[in-house]
Amino acid sequence: MLKILKIGGNIVDNPRKLDQFISDFSKLDGRKILIHGGGKVATSIAKSLGIETRMIDGRRVTDEETLKVVTMVYAGVINKTIVNKLNAEGCKSIGLSGADGEFIISQRRPPQPVDYGFVGDPQSVNISLAALLGNAGYTIVAAPITTDGAGTLLNTNADTVAQAIATAMAEKEPVELIYCFEKKGVLQDVNDDDSVIPSIDSSSFEELKAKGIVADGMLPKLENAFTALRKGVSKVVICSAEEILTEGYGGTTIQL
Amino acid sequence: MLKILKIGGNIVDNPRKLDQFISDFSKLDGRKILIHGGGKVATSIAKSLGIETRMIDGRRVTDEETLKVVTMVYAGVINKTIVNKLNAEGCKSIGLSGADGEFIISQRRPPQPVDYGFVGDPQSVNISLAALLGNAGYTIVAAPITTDGAGTLLNTNADTVAQAIATAMAEKEPVELIYCFEKKGVLQDVNDDDSVIPSIDSSSFEELKAKGIVADGMLPKLENAFTALRKGVSKVVICSAEEILTEGYGGTTIQL
Repeated sequence: MLKILKIGGNIVDNPRKLDQFISDFSKLDGRKILIHGGGKVATSIAKSLGIETRMIDGRRVTDEETLKVVTMVYAGVINKTIVNKLNAEGCKSIGLSGADGEFIISQRRPPQPVDYGFVGDPQSVNISLAALLGNAGYTIVAAPITTDGAGTLLNTNADTVAQAIATAMAEKEPVELIYCFEKKGVLQDVNDDDSVIPSIDSSSFEELKAKGIVADGMLPKLENAFTALRKGVSKVVICSAEEILTEGYGGTTIQL
Repeated sequence: MLKILKIGGNIVDNPRKLDQFISDFSKLDGRKILIHGGGKVATSIAKSLGIETRMIDGRRVTDEETLKVVTMVYAGVINKTIVNKLNAEGCKSIGLSGADGEFIISQRRPPQPVDYGFVGDPQSVNISLAALLGNAGYTIVAAPITTDGAGTLLNTNADTVAQAIATAMAEKEPVELIYCFEKKGVLQDVNDDDSVIPSIDSSSFEELKAKGIVADGMLPKLENAFTALRKGVSKVVICSAEEILTEGYGGTTIQL
C-alpha cells in the first residue's frame, strides 16, 4: 500500500515536532510520498519585505509578490530542509514542486466572482514521474506550488495537492492518505484533545457540519478526504503527526 | 555529447535575457543540464529582512540566516521559475538542489583560516539520479545549494557545481561544459566587448594572469575550466548566453 502523508503548517513551523516527524516518517515501511504545507514563515517574510497580506473572506490573495514569497518559502527552504533531513535519516528523498516535470498541473481559479490571484486547483498529476522516482527508491516530498502548464506558477492548497496525488496514484495501486496535524484527530469538542471521533462517514459528516462541530479549516480537509475516497483511495485518516508509527495511526478514519 | 550549461547572476537578474536564454536553451539539441547561479535577489532580500551581509576578503559569509535566504532564492524562486518556463517551452525539466536525492554532496569548508560559514565544495555527484532523469527525457536544472550528506545545506559556488557535474558525468559519456555569461567571452581588454580571446591554454593562462588580464571572478571560472578538462570533460567554452545556438558557441575555448 502506497502511503501519502500530508503535514501542515503547525508541524512545519515547530522545529522539534518537524524533526520528530521526519525521524518517524523515515522509519515508515513501504513506498510513501510526503506533502508539506506552508506555515507562518511565508507570512512573516512577506511582512518583513513590506508585502501586504490581502485577505478576502478570510482567504489570502496571492498577488505576484506573494507568489514569489510562497515559492521561495514552500518550494525553497521548507522543501529542501525536509528533503535534506530525510536523506540524512536514510530515507532517499527528492523534493518536487508541481512545476518540476509538470508533476502537478493546476487550473488557475477564475477571477470571478472573487480574484484570489495566482491560485490554482490541481487538474493532473504526472504519475509516470512518480513511478520513475518511486521505482528507483526515492520518496517524493511535494511542495504546494503548482503550474498552469503554460509558464505561470500557482499557489495551491496543500490538502488538495495531497488528495490530487493520492487520487491519481490510486489509479495504479492501493493508496492510503494520511492527513497529519497537531491534534489527535477530528475532535468532538475542540477544547478537549481527547475527544477524538474515531470515524466519520458521509451521513455523520452532515450532522457534524450542521452542529458546527466540524468547521473552518477542517471542512475542506474532510471534503478532500471524501473526494479521495470517492475517487478510489483505499483509506483516509486524519491523525496526529506523532502517531504515524502507531498501528492504524489512531485519529479519525474517514469512510464513505 | 551531453551539454552542461551554466548561467550566472547577470543573466538570472535580467528577465529579458533570462527569457531569451530559456527559449534558446529549450531549442538546444541533445541531452543537456543547466546550472544557474544566484544573482542579486538574495542580497536584496537579505537586506530587506535585516540580515547583514558580512564579507571577508571580498567573499560573502553564509551564516545560518543567510543560508535560509539563499536556499529560498536559489533553490526556490529562481529554480522553479526557470523550470516552469522551460516546461512551458516544451523542454521537460526538473529542478534539483544538491540535497534532492543527494545529487551533490559537498564538504563543508573548514573554519580555519577563515570561517565562511555554511559553504561547501562538491565531493560527489549522484550520476545514477542524473541518468535516471536523463534517460526519461528530463533536463536537470541544478541550483547551487548542496548538502553535507548529514543534514546540513551548504551554499556552493555555481561555477564549481557545474564543473563537478560535468566531471562526474564525463566518467560515463562525452561532455561539453559551457559557461554562459553577459560578455562574449574572456576579453583581452575588459573595456572592449569585441576583444574576445578565442582560446586559452595552460601556458597562455599563466601569461594572462601575470599581466592581470584575467582577474577577479574570471580566475576561479578558468580554474574550474582547467579542472574539468584535466578530469576528462571533452570541451569547455566561456561564451555569451546569447550565443548558445551559434555553431561552436563563439566565445573562448579553454584547452589544456
